[in-house]
Amino acid sequence: MSSRPSTWNVPASKVAKRAHNPIRQIVDKLKIDPNAQKQLISLALGDPTVFGNFNVDDSCNESVIKHLQSFKANGYPPAHGTEQARAAVAEKFNHPDAPLTSRDVILANGCSGALDLAINALCSEGQNMLIPRPGFSLYDNLAVSRFIEPRFYNLVPERSWEADLDHLESLIDENTACILVNNPSNPCGSVYTEQHLRDILALAEKHHLPIIADEIYCDLVFEGNTFYPMATLTKEVPILSVGGLAKKYLVPGWRVGWVTVHDRNGIFREVHEGILSLSQLILGPCSVIQCALPDILHNTPQAFHDKTIAQLEHNTKVSVEGISKIPGLTAVIPQGAMYMMVGVNVSEFKDISDDVDFTQKLVAEENVLCLPGQCFGYPNFFRIVITPPADRLEEAYSRMKEFCARHHI
Amino acid sequence: MSSRPSTWNVPASKVAKRAHNPIRQIVDKLKIDPNAQKQLISLALGDPTVFGNFNVDDSCNESVIKHLQSFKANGYPPAHGTEQARAAVAEKFNHPDAPLTSRDVILANGCSGALDLAINALCSEGQNMLIPRPGFSLYDNLAVSRFIEPRFYNLVPERSWEADLDHLESLIDENTACILVNNPSNPCGSVYTEQHLRDILALAEKHHLPIIADEIYCDLVFEGNTFYPMATLTKEVPILSVGGLAKKYLVPGWRVGWVTVHDRNGIFREVHEGILSLSQLILGPCSVIQCALPDILHNTPQAFHDKTIAQLEHNTKVSVEGISKIPGLTAVIPQGAMYMMVGVNVSEFKDISDDVDFTQKLVAEENVLCLPGQCFGYPNFFRIVITPPADRLEEAYSRMKEFCARHHI
Ligand SMILES: Cc1ncc(COP(=O)(O)O)c(C=O)c1O
Ligand SMILES: Cc1ncc(COP(=O)(O)O)c(C=O)c1O
Repeated sequence: MSSRPSTWNVPASKVAKRAHNPIRQIVDKLKIDPNAQKQLISLALGDPTVFGNFNVDDSCNESVIKHLQSFKANGYPPAHGTEQARAAVAEKFNHPDAPLTSRDVILANGCSGALDLAINALCSEGQNMLIPRPGFSLYDNLAVSRFIEPRFYNLVPERSWEADLDHLESLIDENTACILVNNPSNPCGSVYTEQHLRDILALAEKHHLPIIADEIYCDLVFEGNTFYPMATLTKEVPILSVGGLAKKYLVPGWRVGWVTVHDRNGIFREVHEGILSLSQLILGPCSVIQCALPDILHNTPQAFHDKTIAQLEHNTKVSVEGISKIPGLTAVIPQGAMYMMVGVNVSEFKDISDDVDFTQKLVAEENVLCLPGQCFGYPNFFRIVITPPADRLEEAYSRMKEFCARHHI
Repeated sequence: MSSRPSTWNVPASKVAKRAHNPIRQIVDKLKIDPNAQKQLISLALGDPTVFGNFNVDDSCNESVIKHLQSFKANGYPPAHGTEQARAAVAEKFNHPDAPLTSRDVILANGCSGALDLAINALCSEGQNMLIPRPGFSLYDNLAVSRFIEPRFYNLVPERSWEADLDHLESLIDENTACILVNNPSNPCGSVYTEQHLRDILALAEKHHLPIIADEIYCDLVFEGNTFYPMATLTKEVPILSVGGLAKKYLVPGWRVGWVTVHDRNGIFREVHEGILSLSQLILGPCSVIQCALPDILHNTPQAFHDKTIAQLEHNTKVSVEGISKIPGLTAVIPQGAMYMMVGVNVSEFKDISDDVDFTQKLVAEENVLCLPGQCFGYPNFFRIVITPPADRLEEAYSRMKEFCARHHI
């Protein structure tokens, strides 16, 4: 037996020390004054359920209740999900140009869990992965906690947040494990054209790089835009697509997500095996909801989704109009999802140094909370979540207008 | 840009290649014949719900349904769990000698998720952790997938599976990060005495080693035995205790677990922080069940638990009696949980080479499925899950008896 310390000294592991959450770090610094004269309006949280205006469809609830009452839905599901649940996902996302069977589906604990599986199966310590900037911060967090280097490729606000392909290509080297593409995007609200997706795929093919496609917002897109599942646009590039119930079915708390493996020509044979092995470490989502998944995916009325999109489009209109009237701010018009990025033209303000300063002063003075772009790696923008009721949004933009007028040069 | 491969070559990550499941590997080799003349009796799966004789209490279902119907339980909970859910766990497991508040509780995706958090927060790559043999295979799997060395300390069947303390101590070195203790035990069904737990704690204190106490079976113990939460027996040793709803509430599929942090003298300050950071990567269990957790933990009638234990005790009696009549087999009498380990005296059989051979031939000839001890790192034993209905168990033991008679010398 070798020497042990002579006192208690129990540090956190290296992984735990690396695990970080930039949103938490930045938000913790925002001083929210509970005694403010105005009621808090939070446009910060990507949770459509908090205001009561976006509710799960009754039919989904009813199916879960049915399975609870059957007493047959409480046992361990297989680690990668029940056959019926996986078949339901496969059927829902099956496409002539990207066929799926239940074997290609692995359920996970939310789309977050699906991302963890996908990243963890594809990337080894010391490798790098390409992730969008601005982008959902979990990509960065997961990579860093696994000792994988995140390399950020720029999205271009002037081109509706398309990827800067030259920049993306310049980041690729022999240690690059994959490209992560998020479409529709959080935080941008962008929806890529078929051509742009094909351009990204061409780069991936040229460099033999697999893709992780975070498509959790899938067809939550606004009029004039179309969602193209990335896997339907290539016969060559192997793709892990991740999704979940959180956004489209308005149940983020249910923690149901999935990886669908689009394996071109057997390239993902080992990776697919690896995802299955990894899924056995924790097991996936709640069994009762797995049992309800076929009902949820197949029997939720289209009218439910239409209503969601109509509300989001209306709120987008309100938001774009609201922001367009405010000097010093520039909205990038969203095409889908639930977010809008707004640029802060710092030089037009007398005492706003950057996006963090802007959001900090905005919450202090007007009790309107937005996440600064730095949460997504993108300074001098801030993100608005457009799911609050329209009258709340209008109130928020009117407060923002007063705020900006006060601080404008 | 450096050289990229000129063809597709996408290996699984190193982590994915390390992730393995010995149970799966061994079970996959067992040839289960669906056309067997006798109906399959599986004593293999640690899932009490599969036979319909162990059902969740109605009150738990009702609470989940209430929260589903409120439409207020579908949003993202905080990453470490809602305040109310964590407070309920704290209140349930609070003890004068090991006080808990909601701040000490982190919810996770099943006890498996809680183990992952605890191990991942305490142990770094290159360190080792001490885990029991025979033991629940997930400990090994999680350690290996994180590049942590599992070191197995022996449990002694002749002493009701107490730890061999000399052996345990001999494994400790400067790279040891913690000791994992599982009480009551899967696969052993053992329940440790206060004195034995104190002896383990004395070793931990001597070497300044924190403990992970897997106490998921908690007070599912049989007459004459008492469950002592490890944290109540020490003022010095910092302990992460993990538990969950799976076993005591008979809902393994619900995937609700927790870590409770018993921090002596601020030793776990950094580790506690680390667990919170790690929990933010995936988020915890289903929000609806989190909302029901106070009801589940506080309002499930004691009669429900009494009935569970009475059934388990009865099944244990049937099992011990059944095995005692079979030549060549020796049962170690269970004191709690849901399992019994049975020794195979290989030298008494003419054509059984080891436990894997035994269980393989048993399923082939009698369609009775048990897990060989090698699944738990312990050859020449096999594990029986004692949750099937008593008549199924009796039938299984009568088939086993015929089987052993045929193969006995
Ligand atoms: C782009 C994107 N991917 C993944 C997730 C995580 O989804 P889940 O809640 O299912 O873990 C989110 C949640 O906001 C998201 O915006
Ligand atoms: C000792 C032990 N710990 C942890 C677990 C995992 O529990 P959960 O199903 O909550 O992940 C089990 C399940 O069999 C177990 O036996």
